[in-house]
Amino acid sequence: MSFQRSPGTQDILPGVVERWQYVEEKARDICRRYNFREIRTPMFESTELFHRGVGETTDIVEKETYNFIDRGERKLTLRPEGTAGVMRAYVENKLYGEPDVSKLYYIGPMFRYERAQAGRYRQFNQFGVEAVGAVDPALDAEVIALGYTFYTEVGLKGVRVEINSVGTPEVRAAFREKLLAYLTPKRDQLCKDCQSRMERNPLRVLDCKVDQHQFTDAPSILDSLDEECEQHFSKVKQHLTDMGIPFEINHRLVRGLDYYTHTAFEFKAEGIGAIDTVGGGGRYNGLVADIGGPDQPGVGFGLGLERTIMLLEHQQTEIPQLHQLDVYMIALGEAADREVTKLVYELRNAGLRAERDYQGRKMKAQMKSADRMQARFTAILGEDELTNGEITLKEMATGEQRTVKLTELAVALS
Amino acid sequence: MSFQRSPGTQDILPGVVERWQYVEEKARDICRRYNFREIRTPMFESTELFHRGVGETTDIVEKETYNFIDRGERKLTLRPEGTAGVMRAYVENKLYGEPDVSKLYYIGPMFRYERAQAGRYRQFNQFGVEAVGAVDPALDAEVIALGYTFYTEVGLKGVRVEINSVGTPEVRAAFREKLLAYLTPKRDQLCKDCQSRMERNPLRVLDCKVDQHQFTDAPSILDSLDEECEQHFSKVKQHLTDMGIPFEINHRLVRGLDYYTHTAFEFKAEGIGAIDTVGGGGRYNGLVADIGGPDQPGVGFGLGLERTIMLLEHQQTEIPQLHQLDVYMIALGEAADREVTKLVYELRNAGLRAERDYQGRKMKAQMKSADRMQARFTAILGEDELTNGEITLKEMATGEQRTVKLTELAVALS
Repeated sequence: MSFQRSPGTQDILPGVVERWQYVEEKARDICRRYNFREIRTPMFESTELFHRGVGETTDIVEKETYNFIDRGERKLTLRPEGTAGVMRAYVENKLYGEPDVSKLYYIGPMFRYERAQAGRYRQFNQFGVEAVGAVDPALDAEVIALGYTFYTEVGLKGVRVEINSVGTPEVRAAFREKLLAYLTPKRDQLCKDCQSRMERNPLRVLDCKVDQHQFTDAPSILDSLDEECEQHFSKVKQHLTDMGIPFEINHRLVRGLDYYTHTAFEFKAEGIGAIDTVGGGGRYNGLVADIGGPDQPGVGFGLGLERTIMLLEHQQTEIPQLHQLDVYMIALGEAADREVTKLVYELRNAGLRAERDYQGRKMKAQMKSADRMQARFTAILGEDELTNGEITLKEMATGEQRTVKLTELAVALS
Repeated sequence: MSFQRSPGTQDILPGVVERWQYVEEKARDICRRYNFREIRTPMFESTELFHRGVGETTDIVEKETYNFIDRGERKLTLRPEGTAGVMRAYVENKLYGEPDVSKLYYIGPMFRYERAQAGRYRQFNQFGVEAVGAVDPALDAEVIALGYTFYTEVGLKGVRVEINSVGTPEVRAAFREKLLAYLTPKRDQLCKDCQSRMERNPLRVLDCKVDQHQFTDAPSILDSLDEECEQHFSKVKQHLTDMGIPFEINHRLVRGLDYYTHTAFEFKAEGIGAIDTVGGGGRYNGLVADIGGPDQPGVGFGLGLERTIMLLEHQQTEIPQLHQLDVYMIALGEAADREVTKLVYELRNAGLRAERDYQGRKMKAQMKSADRMQARFTAILGEDELTNGEITLKEMATGEQRTVKLTELAVALS
């Protein structure tokens, strides 16, 4: 009987996993510098937590989530995104009681039952940050700066930031009327998706890839901002300019969820063919209260790591390749084999990366392994050398050989 | 409406997550030295993959797994352990075609619907390794050495290794008869669990915590080993002795799964009250074929990270505490605030860990934040200093203050 992974899931294997490790380590390192701290929430939550939203969330929950009932008859859902769980944990663990802003990040798998296709996975990975507890526009700028730094430091080329203000719910309600007045006469010329979006979230219509060309004279939400929104947005822009982060204003940019307020942003990068959105986020001053907590403002983003890694591969970005191994040890004869088992253990304890053969292969095959594993040195232990307490060391790059005392092996390899 | 995490799941929050990061980073570092490479398999697999086993696996799958049906009518199960998925990936991705032994490790969540109780989680984390492709006893010793090194390097005290040989299926079948002949007359005095184990896996009876005192004169599997098993076991012991790893032989130690052969081992540590098993593993020469692959031998372990971390806390093991922050920056006035936003960004780009206030708090509250975050320095920027292109730097440990040029700030903090 042979088994296959479930459609839309992936195995990340040695040879590829190193790129993942590199990208994640970068994310962690940048979060450390920005004083964001990791939070880990469960892979599943009560279905209700994800159901609460309106707009697109409902769509995702209804059509794309993995729902199940546990042995205690609870309705559970594999998390389709990271923010809801983090906010639930923020409220449940009363993090709002702390005097400082809660600056949190997460990295991990999310689950959506999407149509299986190249580059789309049903289990995919996101890196996200959430900063909760302050309305300061400097925090919006910081979150954008963090994402921008992440993309540039992992080596992605052509990274751009687009920003917009989606105002407050009041501003948006007024703009919505204005926009509907503009859209209604065009309704019949719009695509099916746009017609349905007109009812649920007309702001998203402007973003439509199909109909966009029809909207050149559409009203801009930026002309509808009140003074508070105007000021907030202008400070975000000022900070980004001060930091030297390249950004463009895109008044059509909206987020799919209703709890977003003020700043909305997206990261774009040189894609496969066209410019691709690689991630986005925004400010969500209504979300914490929505989840049953105090009325705490927040700002964050969620970035898809599959897309980032795909683009890095497409752009043929090199990741730093460290030597796989410090030394590959070859034993000739049974007594040497026993000694090598011990030596390899000691070298690893000394912090070195050491490997050996386990298949009783000939020396030539072992030398090939050493090459394949990019060992800096090969160390060969024969019976004579063992008797003399010595070992032959070959530097793989130069081919140079020398004999060292067994007791000095770790030092010679360092 | 307020939400709670699902029973038996946990939020790992800042303040605790650092211990997890430390333990996982140690596991990754040791695997690097041992030339084990990471593999990531999906959180769920087809239910059948986990159903295939006999013995305890069946118990787990039937009573403790999270099973669900996806929108494509597939029967799926959240992985209850790591080995089955890794072996499925090994076979499906034809890793057996590679010339070297596949040395793989994984770290991640597993899921079992167990009775919720302190220290037991329904989503828990395991660190595991699997080395597939060789029968060499040096590989058994290496896997044991890796686990031992992991526990000692994270700082766990009183770590001991227990080993046994569970022989081949043939050896075990013969021993099983001998054992049943010994147990049958005692049957009525045994606990319910043992009576049921006598039918499913009589070797496990010897391990029973309740009845163990009755088995002082029980036959030992080690007296039933054939020559091949004897030799394999004796070499494992020899290598462990050469390495200086303290171990004891426990002829009652068995693994719950039928595919184990030869070496079985467990790690014990000073527990809460008693000595606790913290992890275990063994050789499984039948597993890969069982999963539909070629007949490749393997050896591995799976370690529960919750238990490791609980014991580290119980033993009050210190983890290296790095300074949380390099600098906490305080702005006095609006112009200074704008400059600080930019400076913090630049310092972070220079690799420093920098933080600031986002809540418009008074200087005293900000100084308290700097203290709480264990900042090495506080940097204070007032209007006068801004005009002069300077900033006041206070070293928190000594209270010493000095003025530095803004352009030299990064250097002064390094």
